[in-house]
Amino acid sequence: MALPSEMKALLLIGDGYTKTPSAGVLEAMEPYLRPGTIAVPAPGPTQALIKVSLAPINPSDIVFIKGQYGQPRVKGRPAGFEGVGIVVATGDDPYAKSLAGKRVAFATGVSNWGSWSEYAVAEAASCIPLLDTVRDEDAAAMIVNPLTALAMFDIVKQEGEKAFIMTAGASQLCKLIIGLANEEGFRPIVTVRRDEQMPLLKELGVAHVLNENAADFEAALREVLNAEQPRIFLDAVTGPLASAIFSAMPKRSRWIVYGRLDVEPTVIREPGQLIFQHKRIEGFWLAEWMRAFRDRIGPAVLAAQKRFSDGRWSTDVTAVVPLDEAMVKLPAELAKPNGKVFIKP
Amino acid sequence: MALPSEMKALLLIGDGYTKTPSAGVLEAMEPYLRPGTIAVPAPGPTQALIKVSLAPINPSDIVFIKGQYGQPRVKGRPAGFEGVGIVVATGDDPYAKSLAGKRVAFATGVSNWGSWSEYAVAEAASCIPLLDTVRDEDAAAMIVNPLTALAMFDIVKQEGEKAFIMTAGASQLCKLIIGLANEEGFRPIVTVRRDEQMPLLKELGVAHVLNENAADFEAALREVLNAEQPRIFLDAVTGPLASAIFSAMPKRSRWIVYGRLDVEPTVIREPGQLIFQHKRIEGFWLAEWMRAFRDRIGPAVLAAQKRFSDGRWSTDVTAVVPLDEAMVKLPAELAKPNGKVFIKP
Repeated sequence: MALPSEMKALLLIGDGYTKTPSAGVLEAMEPYLRPGTIAVPAPGPTQALIKVSLAPINPSDIVFIKGQYGQPRVKGRPAGFEGVGIVVATGDDPYAKSLAGKRVAFATGVSNWGSWSEYAVAEAASCIPLLDTVRDEDAAAMIVNPLTALAMFDIVKQEGEKAFIMTAGASQLCKLIIGLANEEGFRPIVTVRRDEQMPLLKELGVAHVLNENAADFEAALREVLNAEQPRIFLDAVTGPLASAIFSAMPKRSRWIVYGRLDVEPTVIREPGQLIFQHKRIEGFWLAEWMRAFRDRIGPAVLAAQKRFSDGRWSTDVTAVVPLDEAMVKLPAELAKPNGKVFIKP
Repeated sequence: MALPSEMKALLLIGDGYTKTPSAGVLEAMEPYLRPGTIAVPAPGPTQALIKVSLAPINPSDIVFIKGQYGQPRVKGRPAGFEGVGIVVATGDDPYAKSLAGKRVAFATGVSNWGSWSEYAVAEAASCIPLLDTVRDEDAAAMIVNPLTALAMFDIVKQEGEKAFIMTAGASQLCKLIIGLANEEGFRPIVTVRRDEQMPLLKELGVAHVLNENAADFEAALREVLNAEQPRIFLDAVTGPLASAIFSAMPKRSRWIVYGRLDVEPTVIREPGQLIFQHKRIEGFWLAEWMRAFRDRIGPAVLAAQKRFSDGRWSTDVTAVVPLDEAMVKLPAELAKPNGKVFIKP
């Protein structure tokens, strides 16, 4: 197949990191991205060039394009951390060549050539040949969220307590974790921001769902935490909500921050709990986990494919936005709750 | 020796815990303690009754009498976590009996019969027969601070980086840690609140001393941390000072809270550092360490006695206050910097 010399993409405006903190929501595209046409890149020896079919917008993408992720931006390069597509060219490395023509899920973190583009570059080692039974909508978001879900649920299992608590409970990531938890008899407690999200989460099988904006939230929170005694807190939000939850948790609790949706100050309400109750505060970053547990990536990805194939996991789709319309439509689509937004080049 | 039936003591006014946070300084005695006369207690089977020679006021005592320690107050009992004295009666347990007549350093945590009293009760296992070469002033404060110093410096050594940072650098505890650090070629960085404390700490051999109230404190802090790259932060203060230090520390830093001298809110300035820089926040409590590392207590105590005997360690004495004058004099003596205050029954 002859490749074009140029391609359309959403290109990064900023370079490196920012020092200006901002919330995890994408209030507008223009400060961070511009539509552009650039040369189709050539894959390096160990890389694959992928014609992108579908690419998701993950919360980590928003953090990245704003310059607040753990990896610097390269100005003028396409954004987008993962996607699904067909391998149309490869480097000379034998494993890379073995991927030619295959439909793959891919992650672009190492290559720095993103998926919000007609063509993307990924390390062959970050490309996963797909089972035919996996839909594009599931395959496009099959690395970041599913691996994060499996890795963080492992932390819950290692802790041993059946109950655990999560903020941003209606996110795709939390829904994946709720699925894992139900199968193994664990009891997820989740917080959401809207009453209308509560019935859906109860249907999914959470033990408790609390609306953080309810007038009696803190009282309800304390009652649930006293009854369930969760020791792990998986937190995508930070700020006053997370402070309140951590403060109400029992001895030996661990507050594990993996997102920063709220930019309000994050206060340790009672530092004495760190001393006398052995509570701890730490973070989770998938890239770090992948470096530390390389041998667990393959089995985790296979587990994810099986789950998406047999319907135990399923990606809720809010919208599929053509690349040409992304600048106009993305912020409004992302503001809708409960599902994932995709870009279709 | 015939024992009296009654004794003078400083008795706890509060019971259990408080919900009102307050600073680590003792602004007045009256809300927390009253002078009183109570029956001399009888030691239990595994306990010793000690005629107290000298008892220190530690920061943990202040936290305890205010009801903010990890152990509940018992109203009407004497306060005071440690001291030195002569064993004048024991229970029937053979080890307890072996202590009769001996001069011991003792800790009262488990017995709940404190040392700010003419007689105190301690578990025999918490009594340490003393070498004659150890002064009363060193022996009286030989458990809480020395064991905390040895245990926390172990954390520094395990981390491996030669540089580490401490708040409240002029405290007795920090001076003990500075002594340990110098012997093993480590580089302590400390913060203090007054310029006049700086020459003393430089003489003791710290790598850097910073005045937290200096106009250029944050700039100086960043310069020192960039140069030294400390990964361990031993913090007795919390609040804005500790927030600033943790935020400026390098990747993989650990903020270890062991005191709460400042009651201002403790903010995690950049929660993203927990995610992308693998920073962590935790606590240290000596009681917890002693439960976890029982077999290290004996050697640590012996090491402490040797250090005090040969002058490598020495307790700076601000004042020795007679028990009868403690209500009037203690707050003003405790407000003086650089040394330890003792009660003499």
